[in-house]
Amino acid sequence: MELEELKTPCLVLDIERVRRNAERMAERVGAQGANLRPHVKTHKCVEVARLQTRGHNGAITVSTFAEARAFARQGFTDILYAVPVEPGKFDEAIELSRECESFSLITDDLEIPALLNERARRAGVSLDLFLKIDCGYHRCGVEPESAEALEIPRRILDSSNLRFRGILTHAGHSYHCRTKEELLALARHERDVMIEAAERLRSLNIPVPTISIGSTPTITHVDHLDGIDEARPGNYIFFDAFQATLGSCGFDDCALSVLSAVVHRDRARLKIVLDAGAIALSKDRGAVEFDPDCGYGLVLDLQGRDTGARIGALSQEHGEVLLSDEESFNRFRVGTRVRVLANHSCLTAAQHSHYNVLERGSIVDRWEIQRGW
Amino acid sequence: MELEELKTPCLVLDIERVRRNAERMAERVGAQGANLRPHVKTHKCVEVARLQTRGHNGAITVSTFAEARAFARQGFTDILYAVPVEPGKFDEAIELSRECESFSLITDDLEIPALLNERARRAGVSLDLFLKIDCGYHRCGVEPESAEALEIPRRILDSSNLRFRGILTHAGHSYHCRTKEELLALARHERDVMIEAAERLRSLNIPVPTISIGSTPTITHVDHLDGIDEARPGNYIFFDAFQATLGSCGFDDCALSVLSAVVHRDRARLKIVLDAGAIALSKDRGAVEFDPDCGYGLVLDLQGRDTGARIGALSQEHGEVLLSDEESFNRFRVGTRVRVLANHSCLTAAQHSHYNVLERGSIVDRWEIQRGW
Repeated sequence: MELEELKTPCLVLDIERVRRNAERMAERVGAQGANLRPHVKTHKCVEVARLQTRGHNGAITVSTFAEARAFARQGFTDILYAVPVEPGKFDEAIELSRECESFSLITDDLEIPALLNERARRAGVSLDLFLKIDCGYHRCGVEPESAEALEIPRRILDSSNLRFRGILTHAGHSYHCRTKEELLALARHERDVMIEAAERLRSLNIPVPTISIGSTPTITHVDHLDGIDEARPGNYIFFDAFQATLGSCGFDDCALSVLSAVVHRDRARLKIVLDAGAIALSKDRGAVEFDPDCGYGLVLDLQGRDTGARIGALSQEHGEVLLSDEESFNRFRVGTRVRVLANHSCLTAAQHSHYNVLERGSIVDRWEIQRGW
Repeated sequence: MELEELKTPCLVLDIERVRRNAERMAERVGAQGANLRPHVKTHKCVEVARLQTRGHNGAITVSTFAEARAFARQGFTDILYAVPVEPGKFDEAIELSRECESFSLITDDLEIPALLNERARRAGVSLDLFLKIDCGYHRCGVEPESAEALEIPRRILDSSNLRFRGILTHAGHSYHCRTKEELLALARHERDVMIEAAERLRSLNIPVPTISIGSTPTITHVDHLDGIDEARPGNYIFFDAFQATLGSCGFDDCALSVLSAVVHRDRARLKIVLDAGAIALSKDRGAVEFDPDCGYGLVLDLQGRDTGARIGALSQEHGEVLLSDEESFNRFRVGTRVRVLANHSCLTAAQHSHYNVLERGSIVDRWEIQRGW
């Protein structure tokens, strides 16, 4: 099938770029002696995860139980659910632990070990639990030098039906770095904070089986991973306009776009409207701190070349594009097809039911996206 | 089932509020002598549309062909697809026209009538087409006094396989009005511009079967609808934090919320994190022009009362909430459940597969959402 034959709006996935991104990261992490546990929340797709985990042990990170269920059914046996677990999710976590060789949870709360242990004991299972540490992002996690950073592992170790799996962090604040130097400093900090935290625990005779870190910007820039067991980047598999603006990749590394058609043109205002709106793209504002004019996505032609146009405004099913001059305007008629490189590929992918897989200019496959919770 | 038993995050729909909102608008539009053709893009749900169209003729407006297909299958026979049609959608439009008594399209482009007519002629069908007029929103539509506003209807009338169904507009700029006076003025303008446009066409012997207008703010505030055939509000059925901030409704008219659980708490920062993130809520910034601190949603308790807390930041599966003091913080533990009143109910609903229908405090049903395109 050709791009001209697909219904719009829909996702187009450049599989050659996905393979290249997968290989580069697998090589980079492998060469540094760490295992790769990619975050599949970016794509929620079994076929993509298979490409990502080649040459590693097949471990993955998920952001929802819907991802966990789907990936477990498809043969992934080492799954980490990387949102802090809360009591409303205990029963489903126990079910999942029965379907996987290893299904790990994370916590940063003093009360959770006892509550989870009681439920696991009654269910007759043992559960793997990581301590989440805050390396400076300040979204979740305990401070690395806090009393909780010792007390939570102790409580896990003292629980009959919990196993202390190790410590884990995510340097999400790397998305706001402005220079490569800043990124490198932050990547080193993410690594070194965790190595020191593990040393403190080990010095108190608390074994730390795994030190797990990662974000696409830090793993891309870090100088070495000595002492780190696993890395959990996610976005690198697709990249997006945000990452390209940040310098984590080139624009020609971006693998995901939204195929869209022009539905309206207004010569007086030099404006066109696409059928890719807020639902097809998401309303993520992208790298607006770095580029106030980034809008909601770059308008590419069908071959993936930047037309220079940007999505300036979004409503539910409309994406508005202001063009710079008559000549640009004249390239578009109602029905002209374009591809939109979205700001944030993770959120854009989650809006859709499937990928149309593009290889050498043609659509060769359709891969499902595991949405929901 | 009780709210405590649902998996989070998920949608909770207060059905008593939905019924009240449906009745009020149906009465309002009916009393003014117009027909109601609600826009189902807000909910994408057959059961909700049935409540909305009671006492009217069952006509609906859709924003996607996925909605059109699902609603046609469920017995809705008068459907208007209110995004300008483009050639890539002609074949599916023709299929849909065979499944409905009336399936109408809209256009604002001089080239479309001939292209669409040719395809309809070859398929052996006749298609209904509205002219889209721009009453000041400047998203789509032709200027009401432009040459195109006469020429497009003429071309439709001259086409063997097209029927000119009338003229249509949407005052989407009403969402930016700051006072009731401004809203009333804009609502009158939306109506009067269309009546004048119809008069011009009729004076040239172009029959205008239908004048169709509408948005939730303008239909809520307009003083009369004399001369108007149908109204197409959509958001009123759920309302949301944006509409309540604007004054289109009270906060206790808002019918849709996202049930969510606390997954993290940070006493030092007086912060909690919910499992309702950018995917569960959408990243719509809401009434940020009117209330810079509106964040991404209001945190309600399980009974739907405002806790005063707001979602300040969103990542994919995390919603961060800063609390004002220790006392507020102490109300929340990991596992505490809340309901989030989102900024923009249309975008929030479209993130989910179904509604959990709440009646008198219990979940009594599950209604599917027709996503996709």
